[in-house]
Amino acid sequence: MNRRMVLSVTGKILQVEALLLLFPAVVALCYSEFKSVFSFVAASLAAFTVGIIICLLFKPRSNVIYAREGLIIVALGWIAMSLFGCLPFVIGENISFVDAFFETVSGFTTTGSSILRNVEALSHGALLWRSFTHWIGGMGVLVFITAIIPNMSDRSIHIIRAEMPGPIVGKLVPKVKDTSRVLYLIYVAMTLTEMVFLLFGGLDLFESSILSFGTAGTGGFAIRADGIASYPPYVQWVITIFMFVFGINFNLYYLCLIKRFTSAIKSEELWTYIGMAFIATGVITANILGSAPEYASFSDALRHSAFQVSSIITTTGYGTADFNLWPQLSKAILFIFMFTGACAGSTAGGFKLSRVIILFKTIKKECQRLIHPRSIRTIKFEGKAVDTVTRHGVSAYLAIYMICILAVFLLLSFDKQSFESNFSAAVSCFNNIGPGFDAIGPMGSFADYSVFSKIVLSFAMLFGRLEIYPMLLTFSLGTWKRK
Amino acid sequence: MNRRMVLSVTGKILQVEALLLLFPAVVALCYSEFKSVFSFVAASLAAFTVGIIICLLFKPRSNVIYAREGLIIVALGWIAMSLFGCLPFVIGENISFVDAFFETVSGFTTTGSSILRNVEALSHGALLWRSFTHWIGGMGVLVFITAIIPNMSDRSIHIIRAEMPGPIVGKLVPKVKDTSRVLYLIYVAMTLTEMVFLLFGGLDLFESSILSFGTAGTGGFAIRADGIASYPPYVQWVITIFMFVFGINFNLYYLCLIKRFTSAIKSEELWTYIGMAFIATGVITANILGSAPEYASFSDALRHSAFQVSSIITTTGYGTADFNLWPQLSKAILFIFMFTGACAGSTAGGFKLSRVIILFKTIKKECQRLIHPRSIRTIKFEGKAVDTVTRHGVSAYLAIYMICILAVFLLLSFDKQSFESNFSAAVSCFNNIGPGFDAIGPMGSFADYSVFSKIVLSFAMLFGRLEIYPMLLTFSLGTWKRK
Repeated sequence: MNRRMVLSVTGKILQVEALLLLFPAVVALCYSEFKSVFSFVAASLAAFTVGIIICLLFKPRSNVIYAREGLIIVALGWIAMSLFGCLPFVIGENISFVDAFFETVSGFTTTGSSILRNVEALSHGALLWRSFTHWIGGMGVLVFITAIIPNMSDRSIHIIRAEMPGPIVGKLVPKVKDTSRVLYLIYVAMTLTEMVFLLFGGLDLFESSILSFGTAGTGGFAIRADGIASYPPYVQWVITIFMFVFGINFNLYYLCLIKRFTSAIKSEELWTYIGMAFIATGVITANILGSAPEYASFSDALRHSAFQVSSIITTTGYGTADFNLWPQLSKAILFIFMFTGACAGSTAGGFKLSRVIILFKTIKKECQRLIHPRSIRTIKFEGKAVDTVTRHGVSAYLAIYMICILAVFLLLSFDKQSFESNFSAAVSCFNNIGPGFDAIGPMGSFADYSVFSKIVLSFAMLFGRLEIYPMLLTFSLGTWKRK
Repeated sequence: MNRRMVLSVTGKILQVEALLLLFPAVVALCYSEFKSVFSFVAASLAAFTVGIIICLLFKPRSNVIYAREGLIIVALGWIAMSLFGCLPFVIGENISFVDAFFETVSGFTTTGSSILRNVEALSHGALLWRSFTHWIGGMGVLVFITAIIPNMSDRSIHIIRAEMPGPIVGKLVPKVKDTSRVLYLIYVAMTLTEMVFLLFGGLDLFESSILSFGTAGTGGFAIRADGIASYPPYVQWVITIFMFVFGINFNLYYLCLIKRFTSAIKSEELWTYIGMAFIATGVITANILGSAPEYASFSDALRHSAFQVSSIITTTGYGTADFNLWPQLSKAILFIFMFTGACAGSTAGGFKLSRVIILFKTIKKECQRLIHPRSIRTIKFEGKAVDTVTRHGVSAYLAIYMICILAVFLLLSFDKQSFESNFSAAVSCFNNIGPGFDAIGPMGSFADYSVFSKIVLSFAMLFGRLEIYPMLLTFSLGTWKRK
């Protein structure tokens, strides 16, 4: 393995993070929060120094990267970013290291689970950084790095593959660097559009940015104690729509950009996504209508239903209502959406609909094989035949995904929380959603979990965001053996 | 499709059931329970008449059976048996049809979930029939039929394959009929051995038979209100050991019979099973020791721990303790065992350990593929290479298995029970275990579920016992289309 290259890219990641940490520092300065400014500058300096030292110590002799290097760069990079990214919380907000690490990982992985009991006590700088980590983590740090750093070989597609979610990741345009740039351009443009819509709704620039970052990365950190509940309906609808929009595969936006609208509109995954969201919204609206005073009118029930569906299916985790108190049917639908997630190639987490679709087709094929053992049929997805390697990859992913969730659940059960809390915490963190049920419901927090559980959940979020393999390989001894 | 053959075998199944129904009739007669005798004779006559009529109406023109016929025979056969098997409860015990159907399906599928609030009110005949259905369903009705009915072609391996659980089912001996006989001989011998041990423990013949039938089929219906809790420790240990023994692949017993001990002892699945059970028993013993007055001594904690582990991993569902009240860690371990189940080719339900092992190896292979995309490695299981078809079959099975459990959970959520009840009910019924958590815990019952939920759960048990495909194909329209 090209260890020097792996470490050198990790060093570069820290330098980029040092730069990113200056943004909240400037915001804190605007609000005259000097302790906060100091914490960000200190964290930035620490990241920069360590980053430079690593790069100097490990000059790569070749910049060749294979799949294995790509996977490990991504895992180490995300861990390093989280370790330094949590420093402002430790220095500026007197949060313990484990709690700060949890909060930062929750940010970068776009989970949005919080250990804070009172989010409104944070400084503006810290609030901005929290949401900004969502925005960075949503599209991916390494996608960003391949877009801006010179001298990255075209092999860096391996890095993007390891970081971008979904079963099939390819280049949009011939050069990897250009693919990264196109993705980030779309991402920035859509985020800015949402900000403009929110500014029209009467929010100030600070709150518009926070909410847009959280929506774009499908993260879920809010800055009010009641989440999104106290915002006016217009703002809630804007967020509902944008959460949904950020859950769509970005390749489709690229296709629209190059005017191949028909290709974009024919996407199976898109229509599955739209269908699921619409049906669920309808069923839940009917289910909660009149069940409590706040859902007395159809328009309110529809708004809360659409918001929560959009929030959970895209694994954002914003909330306008405590779905913990909803009827079982509505809870069950949201629970199932926690697993499915939205489209591959979007900023959403979860298992990804494209995998779900491929699995359904695999089952259909298996049924046909049972009836006609000698028939040979190929599976088609998005108009193309799915090769066997991809299909097996999806099936194996389901297996490891379930095993990971059960393992996290088992480790959490050392804690004193309820079965429902623990199981939904495992599902929620692993799928990067945010809230779960019972103690960690939309109005709860992860504060009561033990230090051990918080560490377990932090790594669960990282495993889930990076789709397991990068983390798994990094922590398996075999990977590091010299030949 | 050879419809006449399918229906004709279903007719034969009913005739065999008519015969089996006479056994509880005789027992009821011994206890002078005349209403009960009448109910069994009536049910027997009904099954016999309908069976004869079907056989007369649909004389097969050829007795060729392919995989498809095998799958559908098994599904229809089990549904028909449950429909007639529930009549004694309806006639003799004044139980509603849906409740009686649930109870009978729960019996045949060896689930052991009960809708009865007071099991001690049942007649001896009904109690025996309940447990006898476990025994019949454990090894499989059609395995029995292929063993006794003449003129079954050797193609009937397709039937056995559809009924026997596990990813790989082959013939033990060259002739299918002989395979069935060998399996049933082992089954009968082991059941009788357990009965002898229980008789030594001071139980009467009736209670020994009931408990042995329930253990052998890994069913779980008890005849005391507190399950197995009030039996002496000796009896509890005997049941613990026999539940475990019936969770082992019967092929291994056959290998021992023909003195190939070394082949039997080398089974990977066996050692995984033993390892899991021992580690879990140790951890749970330590976890519950001293947590309540009844677990004050080490020997008591060990006994309750071993019993519950053996009961859940083999999907039997007997209980000596209310694990609902145990610490979360113990509950979590049992919850995970609900999914894994015991060995393939045993009477136990669940996902089966052989599938779990193959999945773990698939994941390992997938990791290797990510690092070395061009490497070609085969997966070995029990010393043999696992062919791709089997491997894909296992992965596809996981997918459809998860989808089914989530679907059952979704349908149950129309009911008013808690999240924990519903989710564990779906898992428990689908894996043919019996108890779940919360309202349906070891000391609870399914009585409070609505009629709709009971029907859903009945079919969940059938889907789970027959490993999904037979039921799925039977209920898909495409299967019945004429070409």
